[in-house]
Amino acid sequence: MGDQIGTAVEGRLYYAPLREFERVRGLAAAPVQRTAVFANLCRLNALYMIARAGSGHIGSSFSSLDLISWLLLNELEAPGTDNAGGDVYFSSKGHDAPGYYAALIGTGRIEFELIHRLRRLDGLPGHPDVGTPGIVTNTGSLGMGISKAKGMIRANRLLGRGGRVFVLTGDGELQEGQFWESLISAVNGGFSEITAIIDHNKLQSDTFVSQVSDLGDLEAKLRAFGWYVDRCDGHDLTAFSAALARANAISDRPKILIADTVKGCGVSFMEHTAMESDAALYRFHSGAPDAASYTRAAQELIVRVNLGLAALGAAPVALETVDRPASPVPPAHAQRLVAAYSRALIEAAATEPRLVALDADLVLDTGLIPFRDAYPARFVECGIAEQDMVSQAGGMALRGLLPVVHSFACFLAARPNEQIYNNATEHTKVIYVGSLAGVVPGGPGHSHQSVRDIAALGGIPGLEMIEPCNERETEAAVRYAIGEAKGSCYLRLCSIPVDTPFELPADYRLVPGRGTVLRPGGDALLIGYGPVLLSEALRAAGQLARERGLEVAVVDLPWLNRFDPQWLAELTAGVAVVFTLDNHYLDGGQGERLSAVLAERSIPVRVVRIGLTAVPVCGTNAEVLGACGLDAESLASRIAAELR
Amino acid sequence: MGDQIGTAVEGRLYYAPLREFERVRGLAAAPVQRTAVFANLCRLNALYMIARAGSGHIGSSFSSLDLISWLLLNELEAPGTDNAGGDVYFSSKGHDAPGYYAALIGTGRIEFELIHRLRRLDGLPGHPDVGTPGIVTNTGSLGMGISKAKGMIRANRLLGRGGRVFVLTGDGELQEGQFWESLISAVNGGFSEITAIIDHNKLQSDTFVSQVSDLGDLEAKLRAFGWYVDRCDGHDLTAFSAALARANAISDRPKILIADTVKGCGVSFMEHTAMESDAALYRFHSGAPDAASYTRAAQELIVRVNLGLAALGAAPVALETVDRPASPVPPAHAQRLVAAYSRALIEAAATEPRLVALDADLVLDTGLIPFRDAYPARFVECGIAEQDMVSQAGGMALRGLLPVVHSFACFLAARPNEQIYNNATEHTKVIYVGSLAGVVPGGPGHSHQSVRDIAALGGIPGLEMIEPCNERETEAAVRYAIGEAKGSCYLRLCSIPVDTPFELPADYRLVPGRGTVLRPGGDALLIGYGPVLLSEALRAAGQLARERGLEVAVVDLPWLNRFDPQWLAELTAGVAVVFTLDNHYLDGGQGERLSAVLAERSIPVRVVRIGLTAVPVCGTNAEVLGACGLDAESLASRIAAELR
Repeated sequence: MGDQIGTAVEGRLYYAPLREFERVRGLAAAPVQRTAVFANLCRLNALYMIARAGSGHIGSSFSSLDLISWLLLNELEAPGTDNAGGDVYFSSKGHDAPGYYAALIGTGRIEFELIHRLRRLDGLPGHPDVGTPGIVTNTGSLGMGISKAKGMIRANRLLGRGGRVFVLTGDGELQEGQFWESLISAVNGGFSEITAIIDHNKLQSDTFVSQVSDLGDLEAKLRAFGWYVDRCDGHDLTAFSAALARANAISDRPKILIADTVKGCGVSFMEHTAMESDAALYRFHSGAPDAASYTRAAQELIVRVNLGLAALGAAPVALETVDRPASPVPPAHAQRLVAAYSRALIEAAATEPRLVALDADLVLDTGLIPFRDAYPARFVECGIAEQDMVSQAGGMALRGLLPVVHSFACFLAARPNEQIYNNATEHTKVIYVGSLAGVVPGGPGHSHQSVRDIAALGGIPGLEMIEPCNERETEAAVRYAIGEAKGSCYLRLCSIPVDTPFELPADYRLVPGRGTVLRPGGDALLIGYGPVLLSEALRAAGQLARERGLEVAVVDLPWLNRFDPQWLAELTAGVAVVFTLDNHYLDGGQGERLSAVLAERSIPVRVVRIGLTAVPVCGTNAEVLGACGLDAESLASRIAAELR
Repeated sequence: MGDQIGTAVEGRLYYAPLREFERVRGLAAAPVQRTAVFANLCRLNALYMIARAGSGHIGSSFSSLDLISWLLLNELEAPGTDNAGGDVYFSSKGHDAPGYYAALIGTGRIEFELIHRLRRLDGLPGHPDVGTPGIVTNTGSLGMGISKAKGMIRANRLLGRGGRVFVLTGDGELQEGQFWESLISAVNGGFSEITAIIDHNKLQSDTFVSQVSDLGDLEAKLRAFGWYVDRCDGHDLTAFSAALARANAISDRPKILIADTVKGCGVSFMEHTAMESDAALYRFHSGAPDAASYTRAAQELIVRVNLGLAALGAAPVALETVDRPASPVPPAHAQRLVAAYSRALIEAAATEPRLVALDADLVLDTGLIPFRDAYPARFVECGIAEQDMVSQAGGMALRGLLPVVHSFACFLAARPNEQIYNNATEHTKVIYVGSLAGVVPGGPGHSHQSVRDIAALGGIPGLEMIEPCNERETEAAVRYAIGEAKGSCYLRLCSIPVDTPFELPADYRLVPGRGTVLRPGGDALLIGYGPVLLSEALRAAGQLARERGLEVAVVDLPWLNRFDPQWLAELTAGVAVVFTLDNHYLDGGQGERLSAVLAERSIPVRVVRIGLTAVPVCGTNAEVLGACGLDAESLASRIAAELR
């Protein structure tokens, strides 16, 4: 049973049980007042979910929760995810998922117990997935929402069904070209069934939209595209419901409502309006609050909820509590590749004046803040506009610069895929750096788990692809790419700190096409790359030696598409089985390319490729590696079975 | 020496030699009058180049030539392609290349003799390439121009150089999201060095922009994005030069001039204004005119040039003539895969009411006109908006339809690459059909030669990729993809008619993962796909048998990423060498995947992969196949050398 809690206590987490949501929804009060209390209850639960998960997007969940709550409680008719018609709501940005989950849980559409399983295996993924009740489309990669909505409406029209689609977008998201692309035909098709709502919370991943890539006169832009445009305070439900009513009366055009919101709304110190206007970074975009911030935030939300209830003559909220899980302590000696990259880039820039760094709204995550501070004139913030960024880099390279382009690997390899090829056909040199590569971190879910970038860039002629295994190899890879490589390079970087159970030898050198034996062994050979899977492989090799007396050699091969055949022939001489280990789908991964070289040289060895074969699950890193058969235990079993 | 020609004669082609351009540029006349004559001379030469090449874009060359001529003769200061600064001009759409080449030739910047080598090996490529003098960036894939320009200006600024960038765009091109994406930061960066000129000729590839995906109030859109906007008649050089002068006075913003032009301007029956307003297709977008149309067009242009000269008191133009080359006659029994696809799609639609076809302004080239006519309600014209198209298809599939998405393979695999993956993570079924696949036709150049689509889509989980080798296999592939496949498929289609020297056996069936032996042989085995390279392979096998007594088996394997290991083991039993043959880069092609399966099964065979290893050249199909080592002669030599 829940308790009425006046003061949040350090070390505990608080959430409202379903019956409290039911009570609020049943209050005899105006919808506006009822919904406001519901939204704050959702904020409290979203905060709980994120604190428990250890990561998640607070700012965007809080800015959108009044809008979402209103839609769910008062606007959507016969909502469903099946094909039976009815209204549909989804978020195009997708990282506001914790807030939406909290609201779906609060309306009983998601099983309550899942509140404890944000970003966990078989739980609620970091970004939306259609496998979750109430989720109608996968998002997390930006700018696709209105296009998806048009497709849904076309299907409704063709199949003779009714129903409207409400799409929530971010404001940073509007920097993506697909957003504008999608507006054009929506007008020509008269898609009045679509109402887009811009959660205009003024901040994107790093900081203020206006500082990253200002949107200018947004209303004028949208009106010029022929949409019906209205604007309101996104936390004033009277104003929002009135704006919706006006929009509902429009039947000849698609509609867009700019909802002015506050990022982090509901908790004073999380609200962006509490930020200094020149602050470089907003602190609550993603990631969990620390213990003290959590407690303070929970306290504020509890007070807000109770004030709302009191105003309606209702009793205070009765909450459930659990102990706050201990924050995972990053290993003391963890390898941090992005930090090493960051240092190496600055070092390279000192001797290479042509070097320019480009970023797409991930200046913190891609390690570019020190570079930006050191070389402000050589830093270009492009906003969430990867196509534009890559083609700008192409233009720079044509005119004598050495551009280094940054984003998460999942976006960088895919969104500007054609632009990267276009640059390649000009035979200029551009360095592409994709961080957050690989299947972990597993919390954000498949939109962010970059496990097909090697394939997607595999056919770019002349592009050398390298994934280093630790800080030292990262520094060597940066020096190679910038200083030695004749053509373009793709650096694939793991973003999580990894306590690697290996070191590179004292005389280590990064030699094109060659790798480093991390552990010798005569029974089989395993070739892999990157800190995560090489660490698992070494643990598996240790286990196989201890438990089965099998000696499996482990080789770090950072070159993803360039192999020295002579070295490979010597390495594999006398070996019966080679295991390749891809932090990537098997299709298009390093193992496939290695197989081709071995087959070309008639090297009589059996190649067993280990890697991903299906869209990866979401969960903790350990859960994901285990579920994908890539943790040490699974690798040891697999290798033993193959060698039996 | 040139002759003064009053009447164009059937069977001959006409062009103006360099000295006539020099004469016109030296005429004592107002720049507007001199430039108008120069532009018409360029039209005559562009028409010559296209007629001689047998293909090329007349409509867009003619609509832009007054603009280009003015810029080259009167506006650009110290233009250069090197890094020394000076003004730069390029076309973002790129298919107006023949017109621009004619102008560059007319100003002496391209060697005159190259006028005879449009779309020929070591000549002038179908779309711009930086290997040609006067060409500063590679285009042909739309929407990248302003981004490239921004990169160039950033380089200029950083390197302390001056110089402006003039970018020509199409109007259909404005449907691409990257165009709008690129506008945003251009304003924020105050890129007043950029002047974009929209060649607003009202037509895109298929027909009127307004019918494909109407742009609405274009001026209002551009103004809302914060650019300086002006508009003028793009064939009135007085008006254009005045608009440029006004734009040049603006120093705080990037500038865009909407130049209202006429597609095909200069030849009465090629002008779009001569089209019926309900005409389904404009006839002179690409492709060469027939003999009679050529002669009529040349005649009109000669008269125009001479009228212009007479008005300036100058003598008529003296032209060179050559015999018109015989039009290549397509082989009588050629296999036409797109036509077969078209028939099969309509047949499938009759029994699959959920089937919907989506197109991105290539309704003719992708074979969709019969489908559109038969099922207008199930046809969706998306315009040049591939990202939007693919995400719309995703939305349709989520709501119960079976979308079939069409474009050229080069664009479909790359531009919406992330959108295709997003759809895949929803586990719906979407069929992607990429035509113009492979290295031929070789005339359009590398932006259109799709030789990395298998790699780019290789990491999409669950996507089965199929390239049929003839009409019969195309029909089978369509039936499989629509009727039998559980998941999504990618159909890769050759677009050129091919006289295949093989037939599939009478009892042929398309069996997943298996192929068909087209020719037996015990000395080696060649595995390939598609009509072009299988035909070359069979010719090579015949030659090897005749000349060297080598019997090479040739196998058609239409499955690009799905192989039946049992079938493969039987096929390769006792074979010493397997040749794989990719109409694609080796990286990420079928051969690499086959190698991996063979290595996995420890099949003791040497695999020699044949395919592309560098960006392909432009030329006739025979030239390109030869240069890439993929014609029968090269294949026979290569195979013989490997078997020696």
